[in-house]
Amino acid sequence: MILDDTICAISTPPGMGAIAVLRMAGPEAVAIADTIFRPARTGKELATQPAHTAHFGAIFDKEKDIDEVVVTLFREPHSFTGDDTVEISCHGGLYIQQKILQLLLDKGARLARPGEFTQRAFLNGKMDLSQAEAVADMIAARSESARRVALKQMRGGFSNELLKLRTRLLEFTSLIELELDFSEEDVEFADRSQLIDLVNEVERLLTRLIDSFSLGNVIKNGIPVAIVGHTNAGKSTLLNALLQEERAIVSDIHGTTRDAIEDVLNIEGITFRFIDTAGIRSTIDQIETLGIALTYSKIKQASIVLLMVDVLDDDDKIHEAVQNVKSHMNPAEQQLIVVVNKIDLTDPEEITERFSQESFRELTGTDAIVPLSAKFHKNMDDLTTELLSTVDIKAIDNNEVVVTNARHYEALKNAREGILRTREGLSSGLSGDFVAQDIREVLHYLGEITGQISTDEVLGNIFKNFCIGK
Amino acid sequence: MILDDTICAISTPPGMGAIAVLRMAGPEAVAIADTIFRPARTGKELATQPAHTAHFGAIFDKEKDIDEVVVTLFREPHSFTGDDTVEISCHGGLYIQQKILQLLLDKGARLARPGEFTQRAFLNGKMDLSQAEAVADMIAARSESARRVALKQMRGGFSNELLKLRTRLLEFTSLIELELDFSEEDVEFADRSQLIDLVNEVERLLTRLIDSFSLGNVIKNGIPVAIVGHTNAGKSTLLNALLQEERAIVSDIHGTTRDAIEDVLNIEGITFRFIDTAGIRSTIDQIETLGIALTYSKIKQASIVLLMVDVLDDDDKIHEAVQNVKSHMNPAEQQLIVVVNKIDLTDPEEITERFSQESFRELTGTDAIVPLSAKFHKNMDDLTTELLSTVDIKAIDNNEVVVTNARHYEALKNAREGILRTREGLSSGLSGDFVAQDIREVLHYLGEITGQISTDEVLGNIFKNFCIGK
Repeated sequence: MILDDTICAISTPPGMGAIAVLRMAGPEAVAIADTIFRPARTGKELATQPAHTAHFGAIFDKEKDIDEVVVTLFREPHSFTGDDTVEISCHGGLYIQQKILQLLLDKGARLARPGEFTQRAFLNGKMDLSQAEAVADMIAARSESARRVALKQMRGGFSNELLKLRTRLLEFTSLIELELDFSEEDVEFADRSQLIDLVNEVERLLTRLIDSFSLGNVIKNGIPVAIVGHTNAGKSTLLNALLQEERAIVSDIHGTTRDAIEDVLNIEGITFRFIDTAGIRSTIDQIETLGIALTYSKIKQASIVLLMVDVLDDDDKIHEAVQNVKSHMNPAEQQLIVVVNKIDLTDPEEITERFSQESFRELTGTDAIVPLSAKFHKNMDDLTTELLSTVDIKAIDNNEVVVTNARHYEALKNAREGILRTREGLSSGLSGDFVAQDIREVLHYLGEITGQISTDEVLGNIFKNFCIGK
Repeated sequence: MILDDTICAISTPPGMGAIAVLRMAGPEAVAIADTIFRPARTGKELATQPAHTAHFGAIFDKEKDIDEVVVTLFREPHSFTGDDTVEISCHGGLYIQQKILQLLLDKGARLARPGEFTQRAFLNGKMDLSQAEAVADMIAARSESARRVALKQMRGGFSNELLKLRTRLLEFTSLIELELDFSEEDVEFADRSQLIDLVNEVERLLTRLIDSFSLGNVIKNGIPVAIVGHTNAGKSTLLNALLQEERAIVSDIHGTTRDAIEDVLNIEGITFRFIDTAGIRSTIDQIETLGIALTYSKIKQASIVLLMVDVLDDDDKIHEAVQNVKSHMNPAEQQLIVVVNKIDLTDPEEITERFSQESFRELTGTDAIVPLSAKFHKNMDDLTTELLSTVDIKAIDNNEVVVTNARHYEALKNAREGILRTREGLSSGLSGDFVAQDIREVLHYLGEITGQISTDEVLGNIFKNFCIGK
C-alpha cells in the first residue's frame, strides 16, 4: 500500500454537464495545483492559503490558459482521505475534463484506481473498513431505506459496538495466554465468569446482526417479486399501474436511469424488483408440461410470487393455478400473493362474497388474496400494503442496526461459530490454550469486518467495485 | 426576468459518480442551506461564515440526516451568477442527488431552467451575452482549438472591441441627432471626417470578424470529410488507421462518449468529422447510374472529399473515378484529396515514379495526391498533413479573434450592411437624420451580439440549449 504518492481522478459522473470536479489527494496535491492554477483574486499560491477555502482562477499550461475554475483546498487530516486534497471544479465538457486530468498526470499525479480515495481514507484511519464499504452502498442506494442503512453504517453502525467487544475479548485472550506462561503455577488471571458474561454478550450481538441480514439484503438489493399468470391475466397492466402510482417518487430521476431501473419500484422507501417471467407467457396450466428450467429458476429467485388470476376464472382453475405455482415454491422462504384481477368485470358484492370467504382462503392456501382492477387502478393500495407487510419496516424506522453486506454476514457467521465453541470450551473446562485459540478466531473474523485484519486481496476486492474518483 | 427568487439544480453530469454537486443561487440560497445543513466542525450557521469557504457536515430533513456533504459558500457579487450561491458536494448516487434536490425545492428554491445560472450571470452584468454563449461552447468543445476559441470568447473576445466602437458610434449618433434639433441653424456638432474614420474602422473590424466565421465554424463543428471509393478501396481500414494514430489523444475520453463521437478525429486540435458514405458502397463507377440523391448530398455536405483509389487501378479507371466525384463537387468550396491506397502491393520506386509525375496531377486535376497503405500504416502522416493544410491553423495559434457563433455572424453581416450604407450616406452628403438612422441600425445589431439589445425570445433561444445546472 503506497500512501506517499498523489492520486487524481474525475470524481463527478462520466459525461457532459454544467460542471465537473477533479479530485487530487496526496502529499504533492497542493504543490501540483500551484503549478497549474493562477488564482484571480489573491494572486497568492494555494500553499499559503488556509484550509477549507475556495479560489476562483485559471488553470494554465505553458502560459496558455485552459479553463476558468474554482479550486477548493483541504488540508490533512481534515479531508476525505486524510491527505492534503485539492478539488477542481471546471466546466463540465468532456474535452475540458480530460484535458485538465491529463495536465494533473503530466505534473506528477497518478490516476487513482476505483475506490482509491476511500481506500486511503481507510488506510489513513479516517474510517474503518465497514464504513468505507458503506460509502459505495451510499452511492448505489436506490431507495430511502437503502440510503438510511448505508448512512448509518458509514457513521460506524455496528462496528463501534463490535470494536468495543473485540477489545474486551482481546484483553481476556491476553490474560489467558499469560496464564499459559505460568502454567506450572496454575494461576487464573482471567476471571472465567466475567469472560462467560462477555462471550454471551458477544453471542447475542452476533446473532442479532446475523438475523438482520435477511432484512439488510432486502433493503440493499430490493425484494425480488415474480409475477406469474395467464398471458391475459394483466401482468403488464399491473406493472404499469404500480409504476403509475409510484411515478411521483421516481419521475425526477434522470432519464438515463430509467432503463437501468426498469420494473423496479420504490414503495415507502423499500425497493421491489419485479422479475420478468416472460418465459411463462403461455398459460400457467402448461407450466408443468412446458417444464422450462428457466421459468422455475425465476420463481425460485423470488421472495414473493404474485400469482395473477382472472376474476372470471372458476375455483377449479384457480386451485389448479395455485397448485402449479406452489409446486415450484419453497413455502418457508417464499410468500405467495394471489391477485384476483379484473374485478371491474363483476358485481362488487359478489367479489366481497366470494373472495373474503374462508373457503377461498382454503382453496388457495393463503390469506394474501387481493382482488383488484389493474386497468382501473382499483384496490391497488391493498396490493402495496400486502407487499409492504412482507418487510419488517419497523426495524429500519427504529434505527436498529442492519447488516447489508454479504462479506460482513459471512464474517459474523464465522465469528459466531467461534464464540459458540468458546462458550462450550469454557463450560466444559477446556484448557486455556484451546479457549484462547477459539477466541483468537473470533477476533480474527470480527477484525475482518472493521479492517483490523485485512489483506491486499480483500481490499482489492472491496474497492475494485467502487466508482472512479471515490 | 425574475431575479429575486432562488434557483437550484444538479450541476454535475447526469448519472452516478463518486460525487455530485448541487448548485443553489439567489437571495435565499444561504438561508435555505442553513435550514438543511449542520456543519460538523464549526456548528455555526453558514450565514455567519465568510465567503469562499468550504464546510463539511450533514444535510438533514426533519431531524433525520440525509447525507454527509461539503458545502461551499459564495457571496454576491463574487459568484458565478453574481448572487449568493451555495454548492453542495454530496455522494454521487442517483437517489441521493434527487433526494437533496427535492429537499431544496421543498425549502423554497425553484428548479433552474437550462442555462439559467449563466443567464443570471448575464442579467447581473457578470458577463455580456457573447461571453455567456461561450460558456456553452466551452462545455461542448471537443477539440483543443474549439476549447481555445471558446475560452477567448468567454473572456470578452471581440466583444470588448465591439463595445468600444459601439460607444463611439453612439456618441456620434447623439451629436447628429442633436444637430437635428437645431436644424434651422445648420450647425454640425459631429465632425464628419472623424465619423468617416470611425465608420471605416468599424467596417474593417466587421469584415475581419465576418471573414473569420468560416474558420470559426470549422473549429466549432469540425471539418466534414466524405470518404468515397470502391467497396474494397479500404475506407474502413483508413478510418481505423486514422483512429489508431489519434487514439492517444482520444482514448482517455470516457467510454460513453465513444459512440457519440464515432468517426470524429482530433488532429492537432482540429476536429474532422468523417461522413458515412455507405450509400455508395457500390463501385464509384456506378455512382452516376445509381444516382442516389442521398449520396450526392453527402458529398455536397463535405468540405473535403477523400477519394480512395487502388494502386492497382489503371489511369483510365482513376481518371473516371475522379471525374465522377468531381461532377458532384463545387471546386470553389470543396477540396478533393486523392488517396492512392495499398502501396504495399507494388514497388516503392514505381509508386514514386507514377504518382509524383506532373502527368498524374493532370490526370486527377489536383496536387493533393497521397499514396499510402492504410493496412500497414504507411505514409499516414502525409494524409494528416494534407488534411491539416486545408485549415488556417495560424489564425488560431496567433490568438486572432474568431467568430464561431452563427447568431453573431448574422448580426455582424447586418451591422456591416448598415455601416456600408452609413459610409455611402456620408460620402453622398445625405442629411443627418438618414445617417443617424443607419448608424442606429448598426448600433442595434452590434448590441444584439453583446446583449445590450435583447428580447426574452432571443435569450430564451440562447439559453434553452444549455445544460441544466449551468
